Amino acid sequence: MPRLALACEYDGTDFVGWQAQASGRTVQAVLSDAIEAVAAESVSVHGAGRTDTGVHAENQIAHFDTEASRTSRQWLLGINSNLPADVSLRWIQTVPANFDARRSALWREYRYTISNQATRPARERRFVWWLRDHLDCGAMTAAASAWLGERDFSAFRAAHCQSTTPMRRMLRIQVSEAPSRIEMRFRANAFLYHMVRNLVGALVAIGRGDAPVGWARELIAGRDRRKGAATAPAQGLALSSIAYAKEFGLPGAEA
Amino acid sequence: MPRLALACEYDGTDFVGWQAQASGRTVQAVLSDAIEAVAAESVSVHGAGRTDTGVHAENQIAHFDTEASRTSRQWLLGINSNLPADVSLRWIQTVPANFDARRSALWREYRYTISNQATRPARERRFVWWLRDHLDCGAMTAAASAWLGERDFSAFRAAHCQSTTPMRRMLRIQVSEAPSRIEMRFRANAFLYHMVRNLVGALVAIGRGDAPVGWARELIAGRDRRKGAATAPAQGLALSSIAYAKEFGLPGAEA
Repeated sequence: MPRLALACEYDGTDFVGWQAQASGRTVQAVLSDAIEAVAAESVSVHGAGRTDTGVHAENQIAHFDTEASRTSRQWLLGINSNLPADVSLRWIQTVPANFDARRSALWREYRYTISNQATRPARERRFVWWLRDHLDCGAMTAAASAWLGERDFSAFRAAHCQSTTPMRRMLRIQVSEAPSRIEMRFRANAFLYHMVRNLVGALVAIGRGDAPVGWARELIAGRDRRKGAATAPAQGLALSSIAYAKEFGLPGAEA
Repeated sequence: MPRLALACEYDGTDFVGWQAQASGRTVQAVLSDAIEAVAAESVSVHGAGRTDTGVHAENQIAHFDTEASRTSRQWLLGINSNLPADVSLRWIQTVPANFDARRSALWREYRYTISNQATRPARERRFVWWLRDHLDCGAMTAAASAWLGERDFSAFRAAHCQSTTPMRRMLRIQVSEAPSRIEMRFRANAFLYHMVRNLVGALVAIGRGDAPVGWARELIAGRDRRKGAATAPAQGLALSSIAYAKEFGLPGAEA
């Protein structure tokens, strides 16, 4: 049965996350419904990253199998016209049968945005964590270097994380500063449950001066979630890109 | 009675505009309510620009008179904690009694944002006009130059505009292009009702190639609204800044 891969974008504010569940509106469910309306048959949609309640995506990748025969343009326009306003398909194309959105991913990148200004933001409120305290970006950058490479991230893992291993390979962390805004990008082979938000919580504590730069290294070495900072709120987080091997021929694949 | 000036930011999506009216949620009304909660007396809030239904503001300036005595910090924190999530106060301070948010304004600048990509944007949907057609920014820039200076803008004025004169002085128009995005900035002493959205509609027709560059000059010379392009939708528009004389000592005043 032919396999298709797709990239979608969403505003996670009004979803209880990606994954279909007993109750609550999920991206996977509205996407499945839209695809089924075009395919005229039932489909099973598999996503690369399970974004949590309130978390956004600039590029979530998913795949599904179908016997329905449509051109890429028919799929794209048809699915987009069946999706609600807060979800949009960016591209869709046929892929080899061995492509799996989750298992084939080489790395994922998440972006976390802080609005760093004296007053509460109104227009950006759905997409940022507002903090009025001064944050020392130099200290945050220095601290983050302790987390690079293949490491045990138990200290940054939520209690109900279902992964069989706490080992993850962190490829890059970037902290950048613009007027009234701090952005952090985390690139790893994969992430544990709440891992990015827990890393951000620790970086913010260090940026505020509540903890020294060396705390980042102590935390990861201690492997104890109870010692960490508070989890950063969901709305500042977005799944920004996922890379696959060039052989799959996906748009924007960087590896 | 002491006079205070303030700057506020809002997401206009869920408002029927700035000005208080018989029905519908207005920025002026929620702002008055928040100020009255802090002042513990009734106030009359006067804004510089009457943004329309669905139009946003990065910096709307307003003033009010009050006998209540509070520090700037008390006003700022108190009003912000009484405002809904989609409106926020940026600053507030005492001004001379001759300051009037509307009459003292030297110029206003509006920003119009187009999302120019193949697929419908999801996260930005409240703040952009989505157009998938290619737009020629060079042609749009060339066309806009016909509108600079002191001119009769009757051709770009909505039927129910209440201004006594169609004359306005356009100080600057900038069209800028970024990946998947086109931004237009219009700076004038003041604007007629729907003027920016009607100018944008004409620029888009020219950018698409539906009309030649010279049409911009013909339209303004003809002074006939029935000959113009369709009005651009409200959600792409934001009141971005208002300038006052330096003597008033307002933050960010550029003139």
